[in-house]
Amino acid sequence: MDTKGIKLVTIGGGSSYTPEFVEGIIKRYDELPVRELWLVDIEAGKEKLDIVGNLARRMVKKANLPMDVHLTLDREAALQNADFVTTQIRVGLLESRIKDERIPIKHGMIGQETNGAGGLFKALRTIPVLMDIAEDMQRLCPNAWLINFTNPAGMVTEAIIKHSNHKKVVGVCNVPINMKITIANLLNVPVEKVQIKFAGLNHMSYGIDVFVDGKSKLTKVIELLANPENQLSMNNIAPIPWEGEFIKALHMIPSPYHRYYYKTGEILTKEQKEFEQGKTRAEVVKELENKLFELYKDPNLNIKPPQLAERGGAYYSNVACDLISSIYNNKGDIQTLNVVNNGAISSLPNDTVVEVNCTVTNNGPIPLAVGRLPFSINGLIQQIKSFELTAIEAAITGSYEKALLALCINPLITDDEKAKVILDELLEAHKAYLPQFNFSS
Amino acid sequence: MDTKGIKLVTIGGGSSYTPEFVEGIIKRYDELPVRELWLVDIEAGKEKLDIVGNLARRMVKKANLPMDVHLTLDREAALQNADFVTTQIRVGLLESRIKDERIPIKHGMIGQETNGAGGLFKALRTIPVLMDIAEDMQRLCPNAWLINFTNPAGMVTEAIIKHSNHKKVVGVCNVPINMKITIANLLNVPVEKVQIKFAGLNHMSYGIDVFVDGKSKLTKVIELLANPENQLSMNNIAPIPWEGEFIKALHMIPSPYHRYYYKTGEILTKEQKEFEQGKTRAEVVKELENKLFELYKDPNLNIKPPQLAERGGAYYSNVACDLISSIYNNKGDIQTLNVVNNGAISSLPNDTVVEVNCTVTNNGPIPLAVGRLPFSINGLIQQIKSFELTAIEAAITGSYEKALLALCINPLITDDEKAKVILDELLEAHKAYLPQFNFSS
Amino acid sequence: MDTKGIKLVTIGGGSSYTPEFVEGIIKRYDELPVRELWLVDIEAGKEKLDIVGNLARRMVKKANLPMDVHLTLDREAALQNADFVTTQIRVGLLESRIKDERIPIKHGMIGQETNGAGGLFKALRTIPVLMDIAEDMQRLCPNAWLINFTNPAGMVTEAIIKHSNHKKVVGVCNVPINMKITIANLLNVPVEKVQIKFAGLNHMSYGIDVFVDGKSKLTKVIELLANPENQLSMNNIAPIPWEGEFIKALHMIPSPYHRYYYKTGEILTKEQKEFEQGKTRAEVVKELENKLFELYKDPNLNIKPPQLAERGGAYYSNVACDLISSIYNNKGDIQTLNVVNNGAISSLPNDTVVEVNCTVTNNGPIPLAVGRLPFSINGLIQQIKSFELTAIEAAITGSYEKALLALCINPLITDDEKAKVILDELLEAHKAYLPQFNFSS
Amino acid sequence: MDTKGIKLVTIGGGSSYTPEFVEGIIKRYDELPVRELWLVDIEAGKEKLDIVGNLARRMVKKANLPMDVHLTLDREAALQNADFVTTQIRVGLLESRIKDERIPIKHGMIGQETNGAGGLFKALRTIPVLMDIAEDMQRLCPNAWLINFTNPAGMVTEAIIKHSNHKKVVGVCNVPINMKITIANLLNVPVEKVQIKFAGLNHMSYGIDVFVDGKSKLTKVIELLANPENQLSMNNIAPIPWEGEFIKALHMIPSPYHRYYYKTGEILTKEQKEFEQGKTRAEVVKELENKLFELYKDPNLNIKPPQLAERGGAYYSNVACDLISSIYNNKGDIQTLNVVNNGAISSLPNDTVVEVNCTVTNNGPIPLAVGRLPFSINGLIQQIKSFELTAIEAAITGSYEKALLALCINPLITDDEKAKVILDELLEAHKAYLPQFNFSS
Repeated sequence: MDTKGIKLVTIGGGSSYTPEFVEGIIKRYDELPVRELWLVDIEAGKEKLDIVGNLARRMVKKANLPMDVHLTLDREAALQNADFVTTQIRVGLLESRIKDERIPIKHGMIGQETNGAGGLFKALRTIPVLMDIAEDMQRLCPNAWLINFTNPAGMVTEAIIKHSNHKKVVGVCNVPINMKITIANLLNVPVEKVQIKFAGLNHMSYGIDVFVDGKSKLTKVIELLANPENQLSMNNIAPIPWEGEFIKALHMIPSPYHRYYYKTGEILTKEQKEFEQGKTRAEVVKELENKLFELYKDPNLNIKPPQLAERGGAYYSNVACDLISSIYNNKGDIQTLNVVNNGAISSLPNDTVVEVNCTVTNNGPIPLAVGRLPFSINGLIQQIKSFELTAIEAAITGSYEKALLALCINPLITDDEKAKVILDELLEAHKAYLPQFNFSS
Repeated sequence: MDTKGIKLVTIGGGSSYTPEFVEGIIKRYDELPVRELWLVDIEAGKEKLDIVGNLARRMVKKANLPMDVHLTLDREAALQNADFVTTQIRVGLLESRIKDERIPIKHGMIGQETNGAGGLFKALRTIPVLMDIAEDMQRLCPNAWLINFTNPAGMVTEAIIKHSNHKKVVGVCNVPINMKITIANLLNVPVEKVQIKFAGLNHMSYGIDVFVDGKSKLTKVIELLANPENQLSMNNIAPIPWEGEFIKALHMIPSPYHRYYYKTGEILTKEQKEFEQGKTRAEVVKELENKLFELYKDPNLNIKPPQLAERGGAYYSNVACDLISSIYNNKGDIQTLNVVNNGAISSLPNDTVVEVNCTVTNNGPIPLAVGRLPFSINGLIQQIKSFELTAIEAAITGSYEKALLALCINPLITDDEKAKVILDELLEAHKAYLPQFNFSS
Repeated sequence: MDTKGIKLVTIGGGSSYTPEFVEGIIKRYDELPVRELWLVDIEAGKEKLDIVGNLARRMVKKANLPMDVHLTLDREAALQNADFVTTQIRVGLLESRIKDERIPIKHGMIGQETNGAGGLFKALRTIPVLMDIAEDMQRLCPNAWLINFTNPAGMVTEAIIKHSNHKKVVGVCNVPINMKITIANLLNVPVEKVQIKFAGLNHMSYGIDVFVDGKSKLTKVIELLANPENQLSMNNIAPIPWEGEFIKALHMIPSPYHRYYYKTGEILTKEQKEFEQGKTRAEVVKELENKLFELYKDPNLNIKPPQLAERGGAYYSNVACDLISSIYNNKGDIQTLNVVNNGAISSLPNDTVVEVNCTVTNNGPIPLAVGRLPFSINGLIQQIKSFELTAIEAAITGSYEKALLALCINPLITDDEKAKVILDELLEAHKAYLPQFNFSS
Repeated sequence: MDTKGIKLVTIGGGSSYTPEFVEGIIKRYDELPVRELWLVDIEAGKEKLDIVGNLARRMVKKANLPMDVHLTLDREAALQNADFVTTQIRVGLLESRIKDERIPIKHGMIGQETNGAGGLFKALRTIPVLMDIAEDMQRLCPNAWLINFTNPAGMVTEAIIKHSNHKKVVGVCNVPINMKITIANLLNVPVEKVQIKFAGLNHMSYGIDVFVDGKSKLTKVIELLANPENQLSMNNIAPIPWEGEFIKALHMIPSPYHRYYYKTGEILTKEQKEFEQGKTRAEVVKELENKLFELYKDPNLNIKPPQLAERGGAYYSNVACDLISSIYNNKGDIQTLNVVNNGAISSLPNDTVVEVNCTVTNNGPIPLAVGRLPFSINGLIQQIKSFELTAIEAAITGSYEKALLALCINPLITDDEKAKVILDELLEAHKAYLPQFNFSS
């Protein structure tokens, strides 16, 4: 990270999210002098890469910055001497996500892309590709940090840290920042003044306390949240209100994703309806993306179009750019990240990945000690962690038994026989992206 | 426990199970010289106590033993200087169990008496009564062991140990012995030669290894169990076969009760049907019990009638009598019991109650070290333990919030709004047996 | 902490260290607007309080700041609505320290004021007084932070947190900052660029890694330290060089205090010589202090005199002022502090006090996760923690047996019979300051 | 272990202890039908093997049993299809032990054969040989149990379990049984009625409770032990009385070996005197052994001579024979053994070897859960465990640094410079038996 500026590489550069990310980099240029931005994609994504890449170039040009935007299908060339690498890939594209969602629902089970059967299959397809990227980095840019946007971000990060030689990896997610902003709005204070003590796993972390100016405001927040008008959600999750008495009893802030576990029946009913109408989330997103790419093509567009906000990844760019800048500038601010536990949560193994507050230094993020998980949330977090560990094992080894076991452990899959049926159909459907599995028999 | 023989007290002596227990005592008289057997019940159970007590007297007479059978409603008199006390009570009788089962099912949730909402309410009703018994024992027979048959046996035992002054309590259950007998039959070896390494919680423990003559036979057992013809069940649980591939993937022996968690949908469907027909398990048991008491009345009957076997508590008597005899005789044999963890399962708190193998000495049972739980079962066990801890807190404090939280944590209750509805209905239904709750508002 | 400025209270205000502390506050006035500085002492310290207090007033006057310096013997008045409270007291004055050091040495054991028998007795005398201060704070200024300078800082902090109602306490020590400065000098880099990963207990923490600009320099530092010319020490500890091969084998940075444990014989020999010459550390300090107070009396002196540097508490002021400022300004920088473990060091209980890196926020310091202690240091740290826990129990309860046990656990006391002799003599010598012990018999 | 009887192999068969072991086997023939006893030794021990072996044959003949006694230098032949293997070897013979003891004392440090520098060097010499034996067993008799008598028994057992492929190993020691017998005598009850709850490490375990007929007698025992006339010791440890007040404060039963840690100065003084007189324990033992072998040569001797009792290994034979018989007969009795912790002591890692009570089954010993160590003993036990782990690493890798670190961690070595001097001298002295170390430089 010398004076010649930063080389930043984005794998999956053709993603519809890229303009937001580019906007974030441009805004932070003073503190984060990115001189080379490499957008990398695969052959199948070349067209999108060109569309998005050209938009990125127009945005940089408009900002009048000395930043080169490279578009390439040659990952190795891009990674050479990189300082930071981000990933935002989707193995099998949205077509795969559609299958992840539709096949489980057909059998009466939720299959969201980071939860249930969908989460398992996204992990099975994604982990081998990320492992390759990590090994390339270890060879071509061993000091670079890998900022992993790619879902399921917790499992992917853990797989890389445990099974690759490249240990400088952080998993990022926009759920904590969204929760923080919503809470700040509820409390009517600037978001900078709010600190939430997060504890858990990716898409499974709770706000166990909230501080404003160093004083706990948890009781106030619980009161506000117990009012159905004030509840948290995000674009990609149905905004079903929480039972107020439950929020009071929990005395913590659930994440929007927790609806999958505390409102399973209602979500399932809703998803079954969407399934019948051909409007699962993946199908909706596909349509949205098509529209976005139409917009991106416009040669006069040189800013992030406002329509991107509907896409669901709000603040992803902030999360990633803030993380990169804090490492680069040794800021020591607190961010909520997916890192190796190392004892931060006493109730979970030290070598597993958790989502917790970290202080971000030039040596990377260091998790802040949380202590034991309160019992009210320990059970569910342990169950998802058991699922994750089994799913990672399945992704690394290609074991049919581990994949089946992961499904049966998952709290959204409540039937061992249906688990097998769903597994068999999904394996068949995603065959092309699962080289680690043996399909010969 | 001097030469004048043992004073044994059974609280809930009017239970239909008593003849089996009496048979067990009679059979072991040579090693376990019970001179006084006190059957205690409450006013509402007086009639049953007389019926069962008279049968017990006829059984003792037939065996020609110097054992006095006392029938009484005066618990204090019975407990005075007792050596062993067993409990087999049902607070609110079968009428309460019927409500425990029917109310949740009405709202689409399983409510079995030790699982789901039923388990919570049985705990809420039972724990205060058992606490009283424990405190009486501390005053009247502080050296006596309390052998707790009463379900939910794990939670009740934990509540007494944590919250009463009487620490000499062991929870017993007939599931492990049933599993052992079934496995012995499958392997075609005498049950005495089989040792199963159990780990977990009451109605939630897995056989993580099986030994015959000191050699592991787990792989053989898994193969046998994966065959749908060879599967374990018990009278009170639907014998739905396991998915063979799941059993192979799990590579452990699930308990019959695990069906509630790995076959939730199927069980629910079945229970909904029984609900509609007025044939929930509680209703069936009630009918069975009526028939049993008709039989017990027969003044010529002086043995345990074979029809009792259908009732579901097979081997309960063996479990309790063997435990009492091993303590009395310092046998040092291995039994599967509900005791304070004390580190036996590293993954659970030291001060919580677990169901594990113990060596039984004249100083009580000492748990054998298990180590960490395998991840494949850790999640579910942690979740049930979180439920248990929250439920115990609700039972001790009468907190509405803790009761609601316990339901929402329970994996069989998957909706926070329905949890509240079920809670409110069950609280209302069981009002008379929940003195710790505040119904004034 | 409103706009009217900060009210800061220093208990033991008559300490010779105060001018350094006042200097630190003056230097930071822009970021830390202390409007009221209350120096509190007891009757026996009135003369010193006046001398030091007047010097403080001259220093403030010279700096031309709107800061009132109050001198008082009325602790309650001082604490009323305070924002921050620091303590730097010495119960029994240096006379007591002299006994702490001389009595053990007479019997052939090291008795340094935070190690061995001296450490135990300083804890026994100090903890009850600090408990009173904490309870006063809870009543008079419940939101104020107590910054505890008073040794043994780790034990005192733990006693307050465990046994008082005032939980906002942080223990501070100048050893970590001294180590950091020495390492920075060795590496020839500015101290701001150096980050040491500390883990352990007060006067017992090791630097387990060193980072400069985010890159580990541990191997380099070890090489430098293995050279006897480059070794760390402090004014109050004999600068005996480490065996270079040992430093390489340890592959960590020991603290200067670790000499007591890895060079016990040599230190003992040296202290025995000082004992014979009447020049134990306490005796030397007493002489130094007398000289300092002579200087302080000079009405023309209006700065901290350079001679104070010889006293041994170098950088104490920096440590305390930086901590106060970081809390006040929510800085989020990393400081090495004595706080509740809360899982930061997995090998120690969650509720015990440890010395580790913390990020300092307006909600106080939050410890950074360290993980398990390396085995090479785990044993000694555990032993000192066992000593601390037993010593705290003795200090709170006044139990003779716990006090004896604490001595026998301490690695510097290697004989159970001599432990008793030393204990009896020290109890007698410090009788007046040990109200919790029963001397009637 | 079929009907043809047991094949038992003793490596180090020429040991002076062998007659006691043979006596134990003869006495238990009814329950433990040993048909083949193989005494194995190395070339250097051939003469002793013949002497001892012929005595063993005379003993068997006198007992008139169908047991063949084989004497051999061919270890592989002996191990073929063995059922049980015991080891009682001394690598480097008593000459090495003399060096282990004399070299440290020369530099003012205790060097007993399982403590301090002597313990380290016995481990360094012994572990590689035992590793070879374990690997031979894995090849030639994979189902056989290795009963390891060889000191330091805890470290040797842990090294084999962690670093060899043969996991069926148990470390045995006669200290617990000696403590039990002494306590039984003190209490004046038969030893069979006494149960001591042991917790710790080999030569470092404490009796944390004592039961007679299932009732705790700890307070009574503490009172008795606090009386200097009633104290525990063994032949090889100086019977210096404990300070009674210390025993009361500890409220546990220390082992005779704990004198090394709680009476370091006194023991050192005594050993320095023996050193000067050429009467270190090793030198005394050597003389004793010479006398014993003279006795053993007597062709009329056909029993264990009573003089063997002075040798120090009292009850070793009982311990080993009882263990073998309990495994063979699936007895389920409680024995105190060195086995993998597996969570039995929550304060120590699960994969380390501890000395605790076990129930002995035909699947080997299973440790009983102890829970957390009381703080009063946790520190010292952790320190010795840290030493053991570092020493094992040194023994396996031949690392000079790890060996030095092990010495510096050991509480009996209190000086880093002397540690290096002692290390260098001992390495040189034992060169021939340390193939894993590099002496080229």
